[in-house]
Amino acid sequence: MNDSAPLIATLLLSCPDQKGLVARISQFIFQHGGNILNLDEHAEREESMFFTRVEWDTKEVDLSQQDFENEFAQLADEVSANWKIRYSNNKQKLAIFVSKYEHCIQEILWLNSIGELEADIRMIISNHTDLEYLAKQYKIDFHYFPINKENKSEVEQKEIALLKENKIDTIILARYMQILSADFVRAFPSRIINIHHSFLPAFMGANPYRQAYEKGVKIIGATSHYVTESLDEGPIIEQAVTRISHRDSPKDLISKGRELERSVLVRALKFHLSNRVLPFGKKTIIFE
Amino acid sequence: MNDSAPLIATLLLSCPDQKGLVARISQFIFQHGGNILNLDEHAEREESMFFTRVEWDTKEVDLSQQDFENEFAQLADEVSANWKIRYSNNKQKLAIFVSKYEHCIQEILWLNSIGELEADIRMIISNHTDLEYLAKQYKIDFHYFPINKENKSEVEQKEIALLKENKIDTIILARYMQILSADFVRAFPSRIINIHHSFLPAFMGANPYRQAYEKGVKIIGATSHYVTESLDEGPIIEQAVTRISHRDSPKDLISKGRELERSVLVRALKFHLSNRVLPFGKKTIIFE
Amino acid sequence: MNDSAPLIATLLLSCPDQKGLVARISQFIFQHGGNILNLDEHAEREESMFFTRVEWDTKEVDLSQQDFENEFAQLADEVSANWKIRYSNNKQKLAIFVSKYEHCIQEILWLNSIGELEADIRMIISNHTDLEYLAKQYKIDFHYFPINKENKSEVEQKEIALLKENKIDTIILARYMQILSADFVRAFPSRIINIHHSFLPAFMGANPYRQAYEKGVKIIGATSHYVTESLDEGPIIEQAVTRISHRDSPKDLISKGRELERSVLVRALKFHLSNRVLPFGKKTIIFE
Amino acid sequence: MNDSAPLIATLLLSCPDQKGLVARISQFIFQHGGNILNLDEHAEREESMFFTRVEWDTKEVDLSQQDFENEFAQLADEVSANWKIRYSNNKQKLAIFVSKYEHCIQEILWLNSIGELEADIRMIISNHTDLEYLAKQYKIDFHYFPINKENKSEVEQKEIALLKENKIDTIILARYMQILSADFVRAFPSRIINIHHSFLPAFMGANPYRQAYEKGVKIIGATSHYVTESLDEGPIIEQAVTRISHRDSPKDLISKGRELERSVLVRALKFHLSNRVLPFGKKTIIFE
Repeated sequence: MNDSAPLIATLLLSCPDQKGLVARISQFIFQHGGNILNLDEHAEREESMFFTRVEWDTKEVDLSQQDFENEFAQLADEVSANWKIRYSNNKQKLAIFVSKYEHCIQEILWLNSIGELEADIRMIISNHTDLEYLAKQYKIDFHYFPINKENKSEVEQKEIALLKENKIDTIILARYMQILSADFVRAFPSRIINIHHSFLPAFMGANPYRQAYEKGVKIIGATSHYVTESLDEGPIIEQAVTRISHRDSPKDLISKGRELERSVLVRALKFHLSNRVLPFGKKTIIFE
Repeated sequence: MNDSAPLIATLLLSCPDQKGLVARISQFIFQHGGNILNLDEHAEREESMFFTRVEWDTKEVDLSQQDFENEFAQLADEVSANWKIRYSNNKQKLAIFVSKYEHCIQEILWLNSIGELEADIRMIISNHTDLEYLAKQYKIDFHYFPINKENKSEVEQKEIALLKENKIDTIILARYMQILSADFVRAFPSRIINIHHSFLPAFMGANPYRQAYEKGVKIIGATSHYVTESLDEGPIIEQAVTRISHRDSPKDLISKGRELERSVLVRALKFHLSNRVLPFGKKTIIFE
Repeated sequence: MNDSAPLIATLLLSCPDQKGLVARISQFIFQHGGNILNLDEHAEREESMFFTRVEWDTKEVDLSQQDFENEFAQLADEVSANWKIRYSNNKQKLAIFVSKYEHCIQEILWLNSIGELEADIRMIISNHTDLEYLAKQYKIDFHYFPINKENKSEVEQKEIALLKENKIDTIILARYMQILSADFVRAFPSRIINIHHSFLPAFMGANPYRQAYEKGVKIIGATSHYVTESLDEGPIIEQAVTRISHRDSPKDLISKGRELERSVLVRALKFHLSNRVLPFGKKTIIFE
Repeated sequence: MNDSAPLIATLLLSCPDQKGLVARISQFIFQHGGNILNLDEHAEREESMFFTRVEWDTKEVDLSQQDFENEFAQLADEVSANWKIRYSNNKQKLAIFVSKYEHCIQEILWLNSIGELEADIRMIISNHTDLEYLAKQYKIDFHYFPINKENKSEVEQKEIALLKENKIDTIILARYMQILSADFVRAFPSRIINIHHSFLPAFMGANPYRQAYEKGVKIIGATSHYVTESLDEGPIIEQAVTRISHRDSPKDLISKGRELERSVLVRALKFHLSNRVLPFGKKTIIFE
């Protein structure tokens, strides 16, 4: 982002549905000098909930970021809203967890290097050293934490400390072949993104391509989701599929899956980084 | 739509871009008792134009439809806007033009019969009698206008008169194998929807499947667009494609194309009927 | 098919893999005057099984159909093959089971009426009378068999008798909302085709669109499969998917699903009717 | 490929259609000890041409490669066939031409490094030095040939000499922003593969994303084709598309296109390298 790029603010907000919300929010932003560039909203009828995402150019806003948030908090309180505002010059800090597969992390590192993600990738954490070369290539800190049954809890505590210390906003599990403990997950709610190599909820757990092969499905998929304490059951952010046939061996599925996995994870990550995702219960609202 | 269904108003508006438009419009609707259900907008940066679509529940609106429009017209004038408001109890009146192919019209008639389109299909016009049986089956007026070089202009005048007399809102060319004159087209601007059986701008004109076969493309498509005076060049509303291979004969392309054509035409028609399309120059804005 | 259309024979064969199978089979056909139009084969390495599909023009074949089969049986025995030969002038006899949904059966009836399926649809069987009008429209026998817990076994016996008496080759469950008993299924092995409105194995059982809605998936699917004694677990013939978003209500999923269901069922049926499907264990080989 | 991997031979053959071709060819291979693993064929009815691809395990073949070819040549002559046989231990030698865009070449280099392409990438040729770092990273020779109007013919002669000297089988234009002369193209018939960033034949020539943006299409594509003397008109090997909307700026199209371009080029390259492509006139037969 160069100096002359406009500073954009993005609001994500959810609250019980009620009349006049769009008018009140857009009026508030307008009155304080914000030029609304995009406004998207969704009313979930079964739950009677309201969700919105608003982007505005802050150039002529008449309040500091802090004062704007303080004033907006009053409006938000009146409608019992959960909300956050992010600014375009405040890149999210990422940590990427990997084991031995390179296709997902490589894609993320490359896309970020050409300005497609606008993320601040602060560290790569791995239980193996296989991908250390990528960290060197892209000049990112690499932390090697070998894990076994005995030391798992202790290692996770060190990882959590490291992540907190570096104020990591979002953790990407880019084919990280370890299951995180409930304690770890609770430390980063809606802030850990995983890629699972199946069309969830089909083929949860281990070896989904093998499961797909044995079931004889004609289509395989990949799913990116927020990590919750229930394995492979967190809110889905993005999914995609590709056709297979009886000619495809399990090895072919792995090969076709690589392309799916990396593109689904990247799309999920782009949604997340551009503040387009509102997790709600077991689901997500994606403002594309 | 049953009696208890809410009466929904939909605004489509375009104007030169300027600050505060979303706030002004949403505030106006809110102040008059409208409960905004959906608001979508788009700013076209290269052209500096603003487009919006707003849906609101009119239950507690404090003005008659006429008064609401009169008052809104003042706001619209101030921002030099083109706009229209439609109400959900005011179904669009359609005329469907066909020749001999049934797949597109059959799909439209069936979907409307199960409530998927919410259109008022007033008449079928054809230069052949092959599809009169469908008109009977669905109890719709059928008008047979045989056309040849000599009578074309005269017949079109009769058709225009018939369409005007019946206050037809939108004309669907459901594989109508005649080219409409410029006079006819000018009588219904942005109100004639065609389906062309290729992925435009590839393979304009006659026999697009034959053209695709001879070119050896690996994918074929269909395109639905508004009809303008330039054949096959009107603003595109919707497109879709399907894979083919060297095994597909020209006959196979026609068969695969049938499924494409009807689904693309129906999607375009749904966008149009739910007031989601804003034509702008040679293009369209589709508020999905 | 007109008189001058060539009479095509199609062989489907599976056997343990061994050297020279393609050569032996193609040589046999060639020596008896058959002109091979298509040959497709597949070797399943994990199971060491061989599958093939061969089409030939029978114009200059020097044996009667019966003699050809007798001679071929010797070759087939030597390689321990399962096989069958079908001729293009011998249309399969179909029975279609429905309840109240029309979209799938309507598509099948229409496509057959324009020559796209080349099936001999002999009867429609239903536990309701809602779709009798389609039977009349297409001049097909309609059999009404109301079913309840008490009479289910008895009714199924009547249905089986009716189907056998009419030498029905294939049964289509076109959104038939009853579960067939194991006895019924065993009477027609690999000859009953179902459409399930989910991307199996996700969302088995009742209300799959509701399940998909509550899970928050971003893609929904439909699956056509042979019916076995395990509900929704028979060998998959065809699947397809479509994207959805948080904006889609359960009703929208039903609407989007209709298009999926009918197209997936029709594709499966086309594969089956053109002898392109070899069920093998829990899976299928599809020679596209 | 490890020592124990079977040595596979692949035949690609085209000839005027006639009876018994499949039988003769499969019999020939079988008689000489070849175990046929795959056989695919296609008869082009309009042109009365026959095409086939056969793969066999050579382990028990009773002739040397040279003798096998000599004997097969007799059969081929009798049926006036064009043909070639390739062996799996004989990797194709590739040269990749690039200018400044890295996404396509990077994908090819990476996939080859993990064994997905089984190509022998011998050199990278560029008119810029921007991507020399990739050559270093993957330890491949990099040749820098700056080109301008004056030296173009001379530089091409040097490139041709270099390619011939290194016995390059196939040339990949991985977003090479120069037009090759007719002389260059004639030196490598059906051996130069290009990626064009549009759904050909739509948007030939320069700036196809800009053209697509201005036309307002709802889908963009990419096309990989053999290079002939007519720019962007060579036989198409592979195409793919992706949806866009009015929200996508020209910059967004470039970003979405990157993913398309690399995946289409890689698929085309995989078809070519596994001997699945038979160019025929202005089209290709792809034995998937």
